[in-house]
Amino acid sequence: MTVSQFQLDTLKQLGSATIHEAQGQKGALDSGLRPVDPNVRLAGPALTVDCRPDDNLAIHYALTKAKPGDVLVVDAKGFTEAGPWGDLLTLASQKLGIAGLVINGSVRDANAIIEMGFPTFSRGLSIKGTNKCQPGKVNVPIHIGGVSVIPGDIIVGDRDGLVVIEQHAVEEVIRLSQAREAKEDGVRAGIESGVSTIELLGLSPILEKFGMR
Amino acid sequence: MTVSQFQLDTLKQLGSATIHEAQGQKGALDSGLRPVDPNVRLAGPALTVDCRPDDNLAIHYALTKAKPGDVLVVDAKGFTEAGPWGDLLTLASQKLGIAGLVINGSVRDANAIIEMGFPTFSRGLSIKGTNKCQPGKVNVPIHIGGVSVIPGDIIVGDRDGLVVIEQHAVEEVIRLSQAREAKEDGVRAGIESGVSTIELLGLSPILEKFGMR
Amino acid sequence: MTVSQFQLDTLKQLGSATIHEAQGQKGALDSGLRPVDPNVRLAGPALTVDCRPDDNLAIHYALTKAKPGDVLVVDAKGFTEAGPWGDLLTLASQKLGIAGLVINGSVRDANAIIEMGFPTFSRGLSIKGTNKCQPGKVNVPIHIGGVSVIPGDIIVGDRDGLVVIEQHAVEEVIRLSQAREAKEDGVRAGIESGVSTIELLGLSPILEKFGMR
Amino acid sequence: MTVSQFQLDTLKQLGSATIHEAQGQKGALDSGLRPVDPNVRLAGPALTVDCRPDDNLAIHYALTKAKPGDVLVVDAKGFTEAGPWGDLLTLASQKLGIAGLVINGSVRDANAIIEMGFPTFSRGLSIKGTNKCQPGKVNVPIHIGGVSVIPGDIIVGDRDGLVVIEQHAVEEVIRLSQAREAKEDGVRAGIESGVSTIELLGLSPILEKFGMR
Amino acid sequence: MTVSQFQLDTLKQLGSATIHEAQGQKGALDSGLRPVDPNVRLAGPALTVDCRPDDNLAIHYALTKAKPGDVLVVDAKGFTEAGPWGDLLTLASQKLGIAGLVINGSVRDANAIIEMGFPTFSRGLSIKGTNKCQPGKVNVPIHIGGVSVIPGDIIVGDRDGLVVIEQHAVEEVIRLSQAREAKEDGVRAGIESGVSTIELLGLSPILEKFGMR
Amino acid sequence: MTVSQFQLDTLKQLGSATIHEAQGQKGALDSGLRPVDPNVRLAGPALTVDCRPDDNLAIHYALTKAKPGDVLVVDAKGFTEAGPWGDLLTLASQKLGIAGLVINGSVRDANAIIEMGFPTFSRGLSIKGTNKCQPGKVNVPIHIGGVSVIPGDIIVGDRDGLVVIEQHAVEEVIRLSQAREAKEDGVRAGIESGVSTIELLGLSPILEKFGMR
Repeated sequence: MTVSQFQLDTLKQLGSATIHEAQGQKGALDSGLRPVDPNVRLAGPALTVDCRPDDNLAIHYALTKAKPGDVLVVDAKGFTEAGPWGDLLTLASQKLGIAGLVINGSVRDANAIIEMGFPTFSRGLSIKGTNKCQPGKVNVPIHIGGVSVIPGDIIVGDRDGLVVIEQHAVEEVIRLSQAREAKEDGVRAGIESGVSTIELLGLSPILEKFGMR
Repeated sequence: MTVSQFQLDTLKQLGSATIHEAQGQKGALDSGLRPVDPNVRLAGPALTVDCRPDDNLAIHYALTKAKPGDVLVVDAKGFTEAGPWGDLLTLASQKLGIAGLVINGSVRDANAIIEMGFPTFSRGLSIKGTNKCQPGKVNVPIHIGGVSVIPGDIIVGDRDGLVVIEQHAVEEVIRLSQAREAKEDGVRAGIESGVSTIELLGLSPILEKFGMR
Repeated sequence: MTVSQFQLDTLKQLGSATIHEAQGQKGALDSGLRPVDPNVRLAGPALTVDCRPDDNLAIHYALTKAKPGDVLVVDAKGFTEAGPWGDLLTLASQKLGIAGLVINGSVRDANAIIEMGFPTFSRGLSIKGTNKCQPGKVNVPIHIGGVSVIPGDIIVGDRDGLVVIEQHAVEEVIRLSQAREAKEDGVRAGIESGVSTIELLGLSPILEKFGMR
Repeated sequence: MTVSQFQLDTLKQLGSATIHEAQGQKGALDSGLRPVDPNVRLAGPALTVDCRPDDNLAIHYALTKAKPGDVLVVDAKGFTEAGPWGDLLTLASQKLGIAGLVINGSVRDANAIIEMGFPTFSRGLSIKGTNKCQPGKVNVPIHIGGVSVIPGDIIVGDRDGLVVIEQHAVEEVIRLSQAREAKEDGVRAGIESGVSTIELLGLSPILEKFGMR
Repeated sequence: MTVSQFQLDTLKQLGSATIHEAQGQKGALDSGLRPVDPNVRLAGPALTVDCRPDDNLAIHYALTKAKPGDVLVVDAKGFTEAGPWGDLLTLASQKLGIAGLVINGSVRDANAIIEMGFPTFSRGLSIKGTNKCQPGKVNVPIHIGGVSVIPGDIIVGDRDGLVVIEQHAVEEVIRLSQAREAKEDGVRAGIESGVSTIELLGLSPILEKFGMR
Repeated sequence: MTVSQFQLDTLKQLGSATIHEAQGQKGALDSGLRPVDPNVRLAGPALTVDCRPDDNLAIHYALTKAKPGDVLVVDAKGFTEAGPWGDLLTLASQKLGIAGLVINGSVRDANAIIEMGFPTFSRGLSIKGTNKCQPGKVNVPIHIGGVSVIPGDIIVGDRDGLVVIEQHAVEEVIRLSQAREAKEDGVRAGIESGVSTIELLGLSPILEKFGMR
């Protein structure tokens, strides 16, 4: 099963928060993973990398397995005092058509990354480079940010954060997200016309129950 | 006692750091509470909300008690892995004339919050939504960021952070802040004319005492 | 031995990450020290200050020892809930031609600091002012961010972070950094022409060894 | 109004968690404040101290105001890299009959503190001593650990943590805590006889509602 | 497939660190999850619970599904400022023969938990109780501490930390762990007879390669 | 210059906090470095190791350079999610007469370390082992915990924390520490006879100055 570019663009537009809610409040990575440039939007299938906290050999290796549109999702074990990713890997990735990077660790060359417009999510920035001498694994399930990422899962990221969608569920998640958006549009219209969110969301009974009047 | 819009605008202009210093180095919230958009400035009386870390029912309830100009000050217990506030609450708040939000927790829909120009201070961003099933309290004293906030206390926030002013003290605090500003203008003029801060602030005796020459 | 303005400009252009790598992956300050304005670039000899976490007397004192181009490097003991530096010290520093500030602690008046264009690196922002009543030391070796800084060491900072260069090594470090840049330009050209980083960096043997094909 | 030794002993026995629950889930200090010796139990009226993060002058001053049985509650601003309290202050406090210490900061001489049996709650241990040159305040309201402490409020602490009780509420809180204990004894008996907590706590309806069978 | 008590006892004796190493350096939970009593040892199949950060309804529910020997593995979303587990749940669990608890959150009543000898691993202690009003899931895959836990996976914990073993792999992991132990016994014997670890572990070639002589 | 066993025993007895104070409040490592067994006391000359965060090859190498009485001081870059040190290295170290370990990282096999009575200070415990494939340096200056450690510097550690003494200063530091102890004994005697610390430490003038009566 493949996910179309149209679907990916739709997911980007829907945004991580809506998708997370629509798919039943699951799949969110923790809030410590943030975009280097908060204006970017990212969506694509995960190419996973399991590497050591201080070595980017497996990342270079992963590039040889990448298909255009892939999102590299790298578990560098949460170590923030090394930047296994910089401008050269960014350039090589763009050349390969890779859509973006999510790394459980830090990156460097942030100015270049922003100028090159490569969507990058990390736990921080660090100028400390890494070695290239330890093995790693590519396209295996990894566990980062409090979720599991299976190769091919769809990653969606923006200023708010990151969410992962199981590949088979994309169509359904888009449908649910759009339904949620439509419902929220109704709520927005209600708010605009002066109705309270209590009324619009039907919260009166529970407020009554708690004596909140 | 009420605080005029002119006073609030004056407080915004004076800024949180000057106010904190002028009122005797008290009232500052801790440095982890930061503006989603660092360019905003916020000032207004606190409408306090005491809610659970994972539930925004009490926030919806608080909106029914809000007066134009109020600043919602929400204690979500410092939990950053949930965003009990998003674009719908932002829209509803703007419709009600609410001046801004301070939340001891995270928010989501940051892009919308920035575009809508709603001053929002939080501990982070999280796409994880909350439930609406637990009771809370509105307009009770709360304790967030290392200070107590009493309903009606004036909150002032900007890129540097947040400070709370007891309502009865606003006039005095403005006076003291302006006096401080005036004194600092004198120091600025002295600096511009080449005088050292040692001389301008009268620090020679204490430096002498410590043998720092 | 002195470092020329041309050398400092060259270091700024090379950037902290390249310098760190070129000088053998040493001298990087930890990733918690970040620029208040991520667009700045800083380079200059360190004027070190060892002060208490809640007192800026020694900083005022340090200004009397400053030479144009110096970078103030202040150990405020990592305490982030006080801002011993604000707009007055910024103004006084600019008047003296000081190049910028690195502080193991927080600063305030961030809007002014950004507007005035004064390169400032800190662990955070805090509106809480400090006292001026405790002694400190100027131009002594200090240990911040995981490195030692000796007075006169060259500090280079940008969006990625900060690195310190021993003064005597500047010429060599520039040479090594430029060599590294040149080599990276070669890699960039290779990437642009479609060669993999595996090939360009000669990683095949180690991948072979680990059975990563 | 005074609190009797019998009441304090009762509170120690009830424990911080039960008291917190009994008084409506309020008054708990955050979980970062921990006993140096987890075996101690502490209860007594607060003698509050507001001091700077790196100065213990106000603590020495506070001792001159202490009455036997008082608990020193010191706001050292959460700075953990200094120990404003050690064995001399412990000895002086025991001589004065002070019941124990709660400090929003660190302590040192932990071996002596444990041997002397002085109940001490802190955020950590630090060998770094402080100065004695900055003013502070004694017996003013302070805000630590996410709560306000008013002089005379009753502090109860044990391995689980710390809770503050408003002085006027002590009798009522004891009554409620004992009622809660009695109720829990009933639950315990039920558990011992093989009844589920679902049944004992009447959770079936809400489980039904959520379809949790 | 079931795991025998003999196998569980063997796993306890082997210890979490050896098992983690033996199964290829995988399955370790992060170091923030620690035993309340560092002297305990725990091993058993996981009964997983996915609950909200501030609600223990699902934990009570999980007890109705527990079999003797099960280890409750609860994802309370890493929130440490609430203790959804205390002495009543401990008593009920012991009555049911539950082997222990791992919770991604805090617990309370630590004194009782230690006295009752119930192996408990948490991120901290908190006296703050929770509500019982939100749904949760039992025996679903959860992701805590950087790993996935599938219902039935074997959890092993001790002073060093926690590791999870896929149920089908238990026999193999025991074999590998014992082989590792045997090998380490050989190394121990070598060390005792005065041979260096360099020689015993065959590290000379790599030291040679790096010029470390 | 060498330090005698008698001097080391004296330093152990004086303790880290007294030494830090006596040598002018310098040399303290940060409070995050804690003893695995808080009852140990450690003193000896530093054998420094600069290694990668996830590799213990250099530690094995360091053992070949160790002399009886040495304290291994290892910079593992603050990474706490790996334990490059366990029972085998402990055994080998004891065989060589190494006095103890300080590691800017985690250790594993804590039960064994405690039983074997090997003084060990770390940032945490982690069951995650490391590789043995990256180079490192032995007996070079390192910077950990906010201080520089030069090979041969004397490390003293106990429950309170760790302090480093420059080797040439040991005699002087012992003299100053003992003088301080003697002075504190005087203060202790004064406290025992009922004199306040205000009087004993001569704090009246400064309290007067601040109006603290």
